[in-house]
Amino acid sequence: MTRITIEPLSEAGFAPFGEVLEAAGDPDKIINQGMCGRFHDRATLDFTQGGRVGISLFRAELRALPYRLEMMERHPLGSQAFLPMSMDGFLVIVAPDAGGRPGQPRAFRSAPGQGINFHRNTWHGVLTPLSGEGLFAVIDRIGEGDNLQEHWFEDPYIIDT
Amino acid sequence: MTRITIEPLSEAGFAPFGEVLEAAGDPDKIINQGMCGRFHDRATLDFTQGGRVGISLFRAELRALPYRLEMMERHPLGSQAFLPMSMDGFLVIVAPDAGGRPGQPRAFRSAPGQGINFHRNTWHGVLTPLSGEGLFAVIDRIGEGDNLQEHWFEDPYIIDT
Repeated sequence: MTRITIEPLSEAGFAPFGEVLEAAGDPDKIINQGMCGRFHDRATLDFTQGGRVGISLFRAELRALPYRLEMMERHPLGSQAFLPMSMDGFLVIVAPDAGGRPGQPRAFRSAPGQGINFHRNTWHGVLTPLSGEGLFAVIDRIGEGDNLQEHWFEDPYIIDT
Repeated sequence: MTRITIEPLSEAGFAPFGEVLEAAGDPDKIINQGMCGRFHDRATLDFTQGGRVGISLFRAELRALPYRLEMMERHPLGSQAFLPMSMDGFLVIVAPDAGGRPGQPRAFRSAPGQGINFHRNTWHGVLTPLSGEGLFAVIDRIGEGDNLQEHWFEDPYIIDT
């Protein structure tokens, strides 16, 4: 099994796959009589073939390292954002497309306070919290259509620090 | 000044104003090989006069009780959801409309893990975290148009336990 070393999540490293959603740097606007910073419109929401945006919550079991990556999936019809509802990092696994299957996966560990948005049709691992509540707000496409492709690896990857 | 006693946030109590967004009860779907529960499509997203949905982050200063409510606002063009990114409750202040101004306000304190979605054009107080990080994911309308109405009270309210 091929080993993948976890990288810290950064805007630059993650850019081919989506956006890092975080309140970093200066806010775009100061609102509420100076009491609140707004980091404005940080995700590329991209939905096709009808459907609409929705807010769901996911509660996922915690995983442990080393993590065995057996499967990746993608959503052809819509972007998908994950915003942790506790101050915990989580594991974010993505891969470029390589002819209709995942290419070389990469693994990122988010910092507390960071969420992510996967671009539409980006190969990714399932939700993989490593600590905390496993509770996430998810903003994705609601609607009919075949919005899930899975790829199971013959030779799984091992992801670790 | 009139005193308002804080109520616990519940789906039934909050229903006239919006939705409580929480992973309570049984999930609507089990996904990821049994490792994740999906609480599906829990918010009424409602945007008018063009515009589109977006994901922003807010970082708000913590407030303390008793809280002096001097102003309420509403957004005529869109719903607005707040999902805390730390496991902390926050203060949610809402009011029915009374002829173009807020009627009697009500104050709810959310439990950790609860977010809310304000229905379009619902009178509410500004974001009022009482503990934790003051960090929220916000799903609201992005676009042109006059989407903010404020009402300042001549006689502020005092909100407390």
